[in-house]
Amino acid sequence: MSAVVEAIRNEVGADRVADDAEMLARHAADWTGWSGGLPLAVVRPRSVADVAAVMALCHAHGQPVAVQGGRTGLCGGAATQAGEIALSLERLKGVEAIDGTSMTVLAGTTVAEAQSAAHAVGAELGIDFGARGTAAVGGAISTNAGGLHVIETGMTRAQVLGLEVVLADGRVLSELTTMVKVNSGFDLKQLFIGSEGALGVVTRAVLALRPLRQGLATAALALTDPEEALTALEAARRTFGPDLSSFEAMWPDYVTTMSARTGFAFPFADAPLALILEARDATDAGATARMEAFLEASAEAGWLADAVVAGSLAQARSLWQLRDEGPAAYSTVFAGTIPFDISVPARDLTTAATRMGAAVRAIAAARDEAGLHPMTYGHIGDQNLHFVVGCDAKPTAAEKAAIEEKVYGVVAELGGAVSAEHGIGQLKKPYLALSRGPLAIELMKTLKATLDPKNILNPGRVF
Amino acid sequence: MSAVVEAIRNEVGADRVADDAEMLARHAADWTGWSGGLPLAVVRPRSVADVAAVMALCHAHGQPVAVQGGRTGLCGGAATQAGEIALSLERLKGVEAIDGTSMTVLAGTTVAEAQSAAHAVGAELGIDFGARGTAAVGGAISTNAGGLHVIETGMTRAQVLGLEVVLADGRVLSELTTMVKVNSGFDLKQLFIGSEGALGVVTRAVLALRPLRQGLATAALALTDPEEALTALEAARRTFGPDLSSFEAMWPDYVTTMSARTGFAFPFADAPLALILEARDATDAGATARMEAFLEASAEAGWLADAVVAGSLAQARSLWQLRDEGPAAYSTVFAGTIPFDISVPARDLTTAATRMGAAVRAIAAARDEAGLHPMTYGHIGDQNLHFVVGCDAKPTAAEKAAIEEKVYGVVAELGGAVSAEHGIGQLKKPYLALSRGPLAIELMKTLKATLDPKNILNPGRVF
Repeated sequence: MSAVVEAIRNEVGADRVADDAEMLARHAADWTGWSGGLPLAVVRPRSVADVAAVMALCHAHGQPVAVQGGRTGLCGGAATQAGEIALSLERLKGVEAIDGTSMTVLAGTTVAEAQSAAHAVGAELGIDFGARGTAAVGGAISTNAGGLHVIETGMTRAQVLGLEVVLADGRVLSELTTMVKVNSGFDLKQLFIGSEGALGVVTRAVLALRPLRQGLATAALALTDPEEALTALEAARRTFGPDLSSFEAMWPDYVTTMSARTGFAFPFADAPLALILEARDATDAGATARMEAFLEASAEAGWLADAVVAGSLAQARSLWQLRDEGPAAYSTVFAGTIPFDISVPARDLTTAATRMGAAVRAIAAARDEAGLHPMTYGHIGDQNLHFVVGCDAKPTAAEKAAIEEKVYGVVAELGGAVSAEHGIGQLKKPYLALSRGPLAIELMKTLKATLDPKNILNPGRVF
Repeated sequence: MSAVVEAIRNEVGADRVADDAEMLARHAADWTGWSGGLPLAVVRPRSVADVAAVMALCHAHGQPVAVQGGRTGLCGGAATQAGEIALSLERLKGVEAIDGTSMTVLAGTTVAEAQSAAHAVGAELGIDFGARGTAAVGGAISTNAGGLHVIETGMTRAQVLGLEVVLADGRVLSELTTMVKVNSGFDLKQLFIGSEGALGVVTRAVLALRPLRQGLATAALALTDPEEALTALEAARRTFGPDLSSFEAMWPDYVTTMSARTGFAFPFADAPLALILEARDATDAGATARMEAFLEASAEAGWLADAVVAGSLAQARSLWQLRDEGPAAYSTVFAGTIPFDISVPARDLTTAATRMGAAVRAIAAARDEAGLHPMTYGHIGDQNLHFVVGCDAKPTAAEKAAIEEKVYGVVAELGGAVSAEHGIGQLKKPYLALSRGPLAIELMKTLKATLDPKNILNPGRVF
């Protein structure tokens, strides 16, 4: 056993440290399955004091650390590299205080647990995404997670009122305010939100809550033309204002491929572009009436080909199923996937979808590979496309690189972002410079060197 | 003339540089009238390249710079110290691009000009406060300005999609994205928002716009008891959800004193607590109907003593006048004021108001000073109180310090913030440590030294 692991065991207790093969393997990868190598040990603190003690020791020993929440990331941020210590926050969980406007929560609490605690006081958390049952609040904050309702609530950053962070050297910065307005010196928490654990370990947060809106209407729409997506978005924003809570799109390549492979039903298989809209109101009846009036006006305006409004919660779930559960089924229905999570300016959304699909089809045709399935969907209300290439045979590194080069080339040409909501981690590092200039990357490195001079916190992530 | 001013004149042109007595005096102070001394010269760039050239020269010469927008700040952030160069962005103005979802704007554009440009495309900017006609967008960003609608839109930080900043050494960090979701490396713009010009000079920004909501209802309310303020707030949040756009409170000390001295009318002079509420909807009629139903239910619930809903825009303006125009009248109706802008946790709002008022009355009684008028009002939906002591005689520094010590003592005891939305500047520096811990202040200084190693950008502000 290494000296630093021995020191950690002595300092925080042997029950916090595991190095059996099963634990090492389990903590080596994130949801992509990718790993950079096995960790030396898995350390699972039970208190913030434990985290501080572990970081102080790792700092003293120059020992690299991979910070882990629920390990649901999709770009290798929490996956370990050989020789790192996996610092898992999974035992540091619980809601410590809550009322209708905010909750104080430990970092290892899952997003679903935090959501339930909010519901129990008649309130709602503005963080929600597919991995909610496993993803930890600390990970959501460290990656500034997005999700299905960003159009309504903003990203995770917008939900964070207070934050506690253990710095690389073990010092604890604890600023757990419940107040919305604190212009009293630099807002240091912003440094740690979305910086992927490279600047500090999030241990606690105060998250804003909002009153639970009781009414909700869900509708599936078929547009006459994909180019009408922005017309539809503008009309929905005007009609529902801040009550528009989801605006999701699926292109026919996604609907056709995933319906066939999963059996999940969706009412409009052949629509040039399918949308799922959700809007809130004081009551279900009020929300449904507004949605129906909106759809009627949209049909008259000419851009809406067909639509259906859910008449029950069960029907709403069924309209969502293909979109919400499809991605979780990739590992069952494909031998491999090459996933993208990109932003482009609003006016270029349909262009990006078309060009990315064409690029992949061209690669497939040139190589006589029938088994590549480009699929496009996403949160287009936020200019965020998920573009995924489903593969019938596990892609080689070279195949993956060839496709990434083409797709990111399209993104860069359109002035887009190579990661919209998943982050950079280890897997998207080669493409960071397509979205950010040399001065920006230099400043990121300067901040990293300032706050983590020994480069022990999530080293080799982001840049 | 100093060597650096001469160098700036040669580099960017003599028409950018002024050092006549009138200009120096005009640019020495902010809206408080306070100044730390006259600047060496006033430099007014006409382009971002000018700003970069000026900063490069000042960096080379170790020349301190005071960054100025509309100089409407209330804590001496933009007021100069003797020997500084006043770098005024007032000529760097204009909206460069706009559509319904965002605008790209130069930093010297006033908030009112940006609002007008948004209205012209049927959209709305989520930044609004009393100084809108003079305050510059760059200043609003650098101070993370709040205002009357934070409960609906969030602070200025939440409106910034992209930012361009000239660093202390003249390098230009330009990240003018229009996209909502960009988790591609650290979100560097967050460093510069709200750091009061100490880390960089904001030159351009992309601001998010939202669709203009046509309907609005305005109401004035008299509560039965100030302790019911949080009951009222919770009820309003539940009823109006994200359509609640203002929730302002005035205590009787403010209403009585300011009504008498300005002649501005307000319907409830003797209410234990008066509120002004605004809520939006698709139409005025819809908004008014919701507001009336809310008030009826509130009267039945027992905490509402009386209320009036504006029946016209003119009537709405009249309900707002005492709250909106009162503060601008201070300099006419008092010989001096001692202003506070604090946050406290929601449950402590009425306690804070009571204790701050009592503290000032105790000081007044002990000194036999009848001419001190404590007045309390604020954005209590955001836990933000403005507490102002109106003085019939100009207060001495000792009187001011005695009152500040008492009031900030109350704030610190309640775990509040010494500045909620105005910032720290030069005037609140002595009190920063009441709101932020030693490690936080050390980190601020580390960031400052990293990004501005010669300490030339707004030196001596914040800490």
